[in-house]
Amino acid sequence: MIIVMKAGAAKKDKDEVLRRIKELGYTSHVIRGTTRDVIGAIGDERGKAALQALETLHGVENVLPILQPYKLASLEVKKESSKVRISDAVSIGGSQIVIMAGPCAVESEEQIIESALAVKKSGAHMLRGGAFKPRTSPYSFQGLEEEGLKLMAKARELTGLPFVTEVINPETADMVADYADMLQIGARNSQNFALLKKVGQLGKPVLLKRGMAMTIQELLMSAEYIMSEGNQSVILCERGIRTFETATRNTLDLSAIPVLKGKTHLPIVIDPSHGTGNHHYVAPMSYAAVAAGADGLIIEVHPDPEHASSDGAQSLKPSKFEVMMQKLRLFAEADGRKL
Amino acid sequence: MIIVMKAGAAKKDKDEVLRRIKELGYTSHVIRGTTRDVIGAIGDERGKAALQALETLHGVENVLPILQPYKLASLEVKKESSKVRISDAVSIGGSQIVIMAGPCAVESEEQIIESALAVKKSGAHMLRGGAFKPRTSPYSFQGLEEEGLKLMAKARELTGLPFVTEVINPETADMVADYADMLQIGARNSQNFALLKKVGQLGKPVLLKRGMAMTIQELLMSAEYIMSEGNQSVILCERGIRTFETATRNTLDLSAIPVLKGKTHLPIVIDPSHGTGNHHYVAPMSYAAVAAGADGLIIEVHPDPEHASSDGAQSLKPSKFEVMMQKLRLFAEADGRKL
Amino acid sequence: MIIVMKAGAAKKDKDEVLRRIKELGYTSHVIRGTTRDVIGAIGDERGKAALQALETLHGVENVLPILQPYKLASLEVKKESSKVRISDAVSIGGSQIVIMAGPCAVESEEQIIESALAVKKSGAHMLRGGAFKPRTSPYSFQGLEEEGLKLMAKARELTGLPFVTEVINPETADMVADYADMLQIGARNSQNFALLKKVGQLGKPVLLKRGMAMTIQELLMSAEYIMSEGNQSVILCERGIRTFETATRNTLDLSAIPVLKGKTHLPIVIDPSHGTGNHHYVAPMSYAAVAAGADGLIIEVHPDPEHASSDGAQSLKPSKFEVMMQKLRLFAEADGRKL
Amino acid sequence: MIIVMKAGAAKKDKDEVLRRIKELGYTSHVIRGTTRDVIGAIGDERGKAALQALETLHGVENVLPILQPYKLASLEVKKESSKVRISDAVSIGGSQIVIMAGPCAVESEEQIIESALAVKKSGAHMLRGGAFKPRTSPYSFQGLEEEGLKLMAKARELTGLPFVTEVINPETADMVADYADMLQIGARNSQNFALLKKVGQLGKPVLLKRGMAMTIQELLMSAEYIMSEGNQSVILCERGIRTFETATRNTLDLSAIPVLKGKTHLPIVIDPSHGTGNHHYVAPMSYAAVAAGADGLIIEVHPDPEHASSDGAQSLKPSKFEVMMQKLRLFAEADGRKL
Repeated sequence: MIIVMKAGAAKKDKDEVLRRIKELGYTSHVIRGTTRDVIGAIGDERGKAALQALETLHGVENVLPILQPYKLASLEVKKESSKVRISDAVSIGGSQIVIMAGPCAVESEEQIIESALAVKKSGAHMLRGGAFKPRTSPYSFQGLEEEGLKLMAKARELTGLPFVTEVINPETADMVADYADMLQIGARNSQNFALLKKVGQLGKPVLLKRGMAMTIQELLMSAEYIMSEGNQSVILCERGIRTFETATRNTLDLSAIPVLKGKTHLPIVIDPSHGTGNHHYVAPMSYAAVAAGADGLIIEVHPDPEHASSDGAQSLKPSKFEVMMQKLRLFAEADGRKL
Repeated sequence: MIIVMKAGAAKKDKDEVLRRIKELGYTSHVIRGTTRDVIGAIGDERGKAALQALETLHGVENVLPILQPYKLASLEVKKESSKVRISDAVSIGGSQIVIMAGPCAVESEEQIIESALAVKKSGAHMLRGGAFKPRTSPYSFQGLEEEGLKLMAKARELTGLPFVTEVINPETADMVADYADMLQIGARNSQNFALLKKVGQLGKPVLLKRGMAMTIQELLMSAEYIMSEGNQSVILCERGIRTFETATRNTLDLSAIPVLKGKTHLPIVIDPSHGTGNHHYVAPMSYAAVAAGADGLIIEVHPDPEHASSDGAQSLKPSKFEVMMQKLRLFAEADGRKL
Repeated sequence: MIIVMKAGAAKKDKDEVLRRIKELGYTSHVIRGTTRDVIGAIGDERGKAALQALETLHGVENVLPILQPYKLASLEVKKESSKVRISDAVSIGGSQIVIMAGPCAVESEEQIIESALAVKKSGAHMLRGGAFKPRTSPYSFQGLEEEGLKLMAKARELTGLPFVTEVINPETADMVADYADMLQIGARNSQNFALLKKVGQLGKPVLLKRGMAMTIQELLMSAEYIMSEGNQSVILCERGIRTFETATRNTLDLSAIPVLKGKTHLPIVIDPSHGTGNHHYVAPMSYAAVAAGADGLIIEVHPDPEHASSDGAQSLKPSKFEVMMQKLRLFAEADGRKL
Repeated sequence: MIIVMKAGAAKKDKDEVLRRIKELGYTSHVIRGTTRDVIGAIGDERGKAALQALETLHGVENVLPILQPYKLASLEVKKESSKVRISDAVSIGGSQIVIMAGPCAVESEEQIIESALAVKKSGAHMLRGGAFKPRTSPYSFQGLEEEGLKLMAKARELTGLPFVTEVINPETADMVADYADMLQIGARNSQNFALLKKVGQLGKPVLLKRGMAMTIQELLMSAEYIMSEGNQSVILCERGIRTFETATRNTLDLSAIPVLKGKTHLPIVIDPSHGTGNHHYVAPMSYAAVAAGADGLIIEVHPDPEHASSDGAQSLKPSKFEVMMQKLRLFAEADGRKL
């Protein structure tokens, strides 16, 4: 921490800051500037919140943190990229780009099976689909729940594709983990710490979506919650942030890829479907994500988007997905990776 | 819903839109414009998501919703302002402005009792304090949990002040409801629908905070979640939204007060402590909130902010709170209300 | 400046940083931390940009500025609040709250005279009106230009109200200054540095609006541009920032009032008309602005808003303005000030 | 325009709306819904602002625009992509991706010549460099002005590279146009309408940067300003928007590429240097931009970033630029285009 004093702060104010720094177990170090003094507080960062409260002291201008507040997720603790194992055939984080595809929500056996066969045919590595749906409106379709999980398991049996599905409640998380190969934490639950702790205690990989107003640092802190409970198999997912622009449903922040690659060893996946909210923009944003270095993509594909029970406007038809996958392969190869 | 066709859309595209509208159970109505046609879909709005998916049809430019997606929370359903009863002495939503004050987190018996006595002396009507704390870092203080609830109950016994405290998990919500007079849903859980449904089933008033990137419409949809489960005692709370500005921790959106007053009958409370993140700005923003028509305020007061276990920088000392309350009374009177 | 080194940065990297700091004319000061070193660069802040470029050096994590980049606008240079004289009768910045009111654009002699008489009758101190209009569309009404200035001068003669109007081009700024009592820099020109320099050279007070995506620090930097050219008569104006919320045209950031009062001696005026974009929200936001400590308000009033050539939706009718002014007076008195 | 009436609006309110629509020269068309009526106003969109003002009428819920407010820039007016000619050798908008590179500011003859030779060697097609610099601080380096233009012309003579440079003032725009091959409108002047009109009257192509808080629709409106003055040679440039995220200087909105491709025939260029503010992120964002379909890139390259007079932290060294260009070529080829 760096404590910046006000210009002309009184000696007794500085002495009080020094006293508090000592009281909190840090060593202090004063730099006398031309117009004001700056005080460094040296020590372990665990007491950070308490140090930040020094801002309320008289004569203090502001308090600047120096260290990142996450540890297990950081490159400082683990320098080589993590490769998260999903199944015998699928791992996320290596030179193989992993594509997860499928409908927003599981609606029926026919729909999920048709989707699974179609995305597998085009080269997807995993199936996605929601059984528990967090919907903005209480009057919207809330998902088939356990029945949906069973249908996804059936689709997996048929196609060999492992599947990812969302958990929305600590009370049903164990049940979801019994079926799924990877658990998704949705954007609206990205700081639902009770749920993060719960999935940290389960033995399944977690796909952690960035919240709509979540900084990259906060995303890493949410990963840290899961990891600090013992589960190191965390995959980060950028899915668009909320900005003033309304031409897209969210603003897909692809620069999060290189930023995260410079801060964490965890793999990074992009969701261009929610990130743009419009099926016309999914292919170009998928190409861009791969070119920027994403470890995988999660894409909504629905056999009949106009009749989808949710998010039809952003779902690709299987034929469009097929075309996209072929071109995506070229970009993967240009980057020296496989699709 | 209004479906806007592209300029020069083919007749068969229009016919397909009309067919789908009918299939979804709506009546259609075509307006032929100078450069393009516009189609109205008339009927009950429950199928909205399905109508939105018409955007994927060929020849469709975009789909514009007409109706608000909430009902129970709307002024159309209930025209007079709601008054939510908290205790025999306290109701929120009338000419009495309700002040809730206390520390961010319950830390010890001494601290919560001292806080309760101080805020009561200055005229607060309710005590606030966190027993379960949703903290960004897993390494920060997470609250005293049930022990904290017992201490708040003790403070209530001593001072007569009813108290509000946060629920963060459906699994512990019943326990919190056994102690508290009002349940708080925090900003990070404002779209945790599992939790919203749970508090909708409990018989206690709910203080629902606006999420950091939540539109006013989404806030009303989250209220609708609680109300549609049977609990009509919902109080909305603006606590700052996330913007590009960093001079304040959040940007307190006071215009939410008149906007909400024009859309809902539910009472509106302002949290200037989280809304600004700086104790220097709490008093002027409290005056502004009352002048703009807020039904209440929730304010962090801590006997020793520099030693607070969380959010010390935004907590008022009791002496500052006392001064603020005196001036606040003048603004309440200028508005023809009581403090 | 504080230069934070990476954990485990090599000695030669640190030596290079120290060499560069010296080369740029600063004194350096090293703090050895538990996991990384932090280097202070002590000296005058004029070379700031150059210091920031040290971020590109090997082994450097980031560079944190310590000093505010503005001087003339800061409280450190001038501790007492500034009172900007507009005319013999009107000054902005004292215990008198100054109300500027009038139409968005001057449309005709009849319209501006009727507006001026109406706002004067209700107690406004200045007239506002646009002669040069910066419109988003090239096809929208662009203002009466010099003819509009003449009409405003006529309205001033008749009512005694000094007037403020916008300048949009360095080429026409002298002409506007010949007529107007105060020059307005609009939100879209808030970082048009050529225009800022120009009004800095003219002898008229300047009302500087905050840009839609402008931080408070950048607003003060734009004021500094004007002041560094010799014109100290600058009044800052908050008029809403752009956020994700669409229920209001902009998000009026009233917390800018106490934030600015803590950083600058310049007066602060609020524009609730552009800040909300909706005439229903103008009165409550005006009350809130006064309660929060604003030195003045600038409000759109139009005798016939439904026929206004621009911004009708946010204009008050004279009768509504009259009602608002009466209630506003009560809030001003509650704050110990005059209206 | 679609005018949505309030539920239960009185007949006389509807009649007044119909009267006004007629008065403004539109034809009206009423759709009677289950809970409220919706009125379509059919006709040419030039009177849009006036229609929007109908929102102030009694009984009106809101007013929804149907048509885009731009014409010349729209795909409806011109269906095939535009190719903007810069010089005999360079055009922007075809299968050739155009790379503009060079320093943020021209600092000296040696610096700009060295930069020009380096970027040419790596395959850039145009030189960039600022002679007039819009700097946030009045105390920062403001550019070499005409001397800088002469140095860029010298570099052009030596290398054959046409150059782009910024105009910041209508008064000096002619002079800049005498030297430059393309005029840049910077992000801070993107709604400086006096300047847009001026460059619309000059015979040089214009690179129009998106403002920090500018929607895509507003960007097209600013292009429309230039085009409506007679200059059709406009190139749009996405350079990052301002959001809550601080890990990057701005958030580069690459989804603007497919969105713009669906709305306009004008070419689209990406600025990853300002878009991220960090030289580490320039290469991955450049690859992503090309994969998403950008027509060109504008990149900061400086022979000695640590000593740059501005924006050193986001400038690439020539050696890094060379490596990037080689990999960029692979992505261009994967997309079936040339670099």
